[in-house]
Amino acid sequence: MTTLLTTRDIGAIVAAKGLAACLGTLVSYIEQDFARWNEFDKSARVANHSADGVIELMPISDASLYSFKYVNGHPKNTRAGLPTVMAFGVLADVDTGRPELLSELTLTTAMRTAATSVMVAKRLARADSRVMAVIGNGAQSEFQCLAFHLLLGIEEVRLFDVDPGATAKLIANLRAAAPALKATVCASTAEAVRGADIVTTVTADKTNATIVTPEMLAPGMHVNGVGGDCPGKTELHADVLRAGAVFVEYEPQSRIEGDLQQMPADFAVTEFWRVLAGAAPGRVAADQITVFDSVGFALEDFSALRLLRDFAAELGLGRDMDLVPEMADPKNLFGALYLPASRGASARVAVAA
Amino acid sequence: MTTLLTTRDIGAIVAAKGLAACLGTLVSYIEQDFARWNEFDKSARVANHSADGVIELMPISDASLYSFKYVNGHPKNTRAGLPTVMAFGVLADVDTGRPELLSELTLTTAMRTAATSVMVAKRLARADSRVMAVIGNGAQSEFQCLAFHLLLGIEEVRLFDVDPGATAKLIANLRAAAPALKATVCASTAEAVRGADIVTTVTADKTNATIVTPEMLAPGMHVNGVGGDCPGKTELHADVLRAGAVFVEYEPQSRIEGDLQQMPADFAVTEFWRVLAGAAPGRVAADQITVFDSVGFALEDFSALRLLRDFAAELGLGRDMDLVPEMADPKNLFGALYLPASRGASARVAVAA
Repeated sequence: MTTLLTTRDIGAIVAAKGLAACLGTLVSYIEQDFARWNEFDKSARVANHSADGVIELMPISDASLYSFKYVNGHPKNTRAGLPTVMAFGVLADVDTGRPELLSELTLTTAMRTAATSVMVAKRLARADSRVMAVIGNGAQSEFQCLAFHLLLGIEEVRLFDVDPGATAKLIANLRAAAPALKATVCASTAEAVRGADIVTTVTADKTNATIVTPEMLAPGMHVNGVGGDCPGKTELHADVLRAGAVFVEYEPQSRIEGDLQQMPADFAVTEFWRVLAGAAPGRVAADQITVFDSVGFALEDFSALRLLRDFAAELGLGRDMDLVPEMADPKNLFGALYLPASRGASARVAVAA
Repeated sequence: MTTLLTTRDIGAIVAAKGLAACLGTLVSYIEQDFARWNEFDKSARVANHSADGVIELMPISDASLYSFKYVNGHPKNTRAGLPTVMAFGVLADVDTGRPELLSELTLTTAMRTAATSVMVAKRLARADSRVMAVIGNGAQSEFQCLAFHLLLGIEEVRLFDVDPGATAKLIANLRAAAPALKATVCASTAEAVRGADIVTTVTADKTNATIVTPEMLAPGMHVNGVGGDCPGKTELHADVLRAGAVFVEYEPQSRIEGDLQQMPADFAVTEFWRVLAGAAPGRVAADQITVFDSVGFALEDFSALRLLRDFAAELGLGRDMDLVPEMADPKNLFGALYLPASRGASARVAVAA
């Protein structure tokens, strides 16, 4: 049987464990997996593009576990009352190919994206960072704000979105979830970025935007660029990338999907796992500008699915689903068509009909 | 909500509709989709290989629907009581990316593979074909035998497998399901092939085998090569391919995965959709040898998922699953973490913890 986890199960996990523990444990799971980067069979995700969006599959495996995520990106969805991003994924056994866990990953993607941002900022942002600008106050923004507040000591977020309703929603959620976090509404990106130690961009429009421009930058800033994650969808001015040291998840994918898509093929970047492994420096000076050009990589979902599996087992969550047939004789697949519910004369007649 | 169809639902569909109607309707759905080949965004499947098997993702889309299939191939699984091949898949809306249907596809893959073989043999095998050799009597074999019997007028199957138990299981299932179909057990591939109009190979070993060799061929034969579907997994001697006109599903994938992998890159083949469209000839003479080098293509699963969706709706099968969150405000994903089941003081405390 395959275990099914729905959105309600993820809600139950967060309610039982607490958001801080979920995000913190997720950071450590992702770090564990990034630290053994070369054990994974990696590939850039497979995308089917349409006029208004994209649907992607993100597979990855090591010697014992395989995972993939299905995820869409449709910025116009919110007008129809649907989320921009919806996702689910599977964890399977490499030795047999059996799908062991099927889980919602919409809520989980928001958590793993924020956890990945924190994992990277722990090494790249200045240790005394206390103020973060958050540009784009949509579905991902609470997770970014809370992860940086709960796990990295951010005390103030400076918020801007072209939709004031999105910012109001973010403020209300932050007041309820983290009253100690100071949230300041700003009138523009420039105003939000002024005085920030970390600049997080999580906008949704599928356009080549220049949300952050070089004149907004100050020495020592860390730019956490999350929203530019698809061909034709960027957030950072090319000179922002030129101003700092640029770090990415998986270079072949980031060259296609990241803000990096604007740059020549030989523009230097560092895969972040090399920093974790001690093979490349992270931040080298307090006044250096660092940029994480994040697009979201399959390994982060692999880690998240491992965490969901472990938490669900511990908490007794999930239900069994007969997604693949169980057979006394595995060569007798045909026999599995005639299950108890449909067995007997009527089924026999149906076959001969 | 996403509709979930499990193995039991597929059993219920076959019981209600009858296997002949399921397979026949499946052939017509696959034909409809192959006939509009150029409307699809196609790619070769994405494979993660391990020592004993492979896990693959097979996406495809047209302007309105997207589908993918997850499928493994682990020949050693049967020793551990598991099927060699397990599969499931999803049908999603291209305009929004919303997953609409999640279905088992293990049983369904066996049916769609047989339906595809029939679709092709209708155009390539001699119209007076009555005898089919079936080499490999494992999980796929009943579906091939019954599809060719029920839909194409095959009156006798000549069976061979290195495992006599597999053949005995096949015979027992055929006697129950189709008493009018004559089934003859043979002692070798050569004996089974002798006198056959159609030769179907559905073996499972992940090796470069030469199950069918040129001296077994007779003028007018149609070879339905189903089991060679993965790098390092072939069934036909190279001279069998040279002896006939070779037809494939999607050439870029077949060059990698099919028996075609043995041949030079310029070895001539015909994509079968061109025969359906009248753009290429099928069989041109009664004594011609034709070869369908089948590997299984995403479009066939797309068609199968469309059929399951339609039959399930008609029969009232399936159940709702909250695989993606439903939200009053789609930008308020964070709010969806706090569902009715986990709402209230304890959840609040958990977040602040």
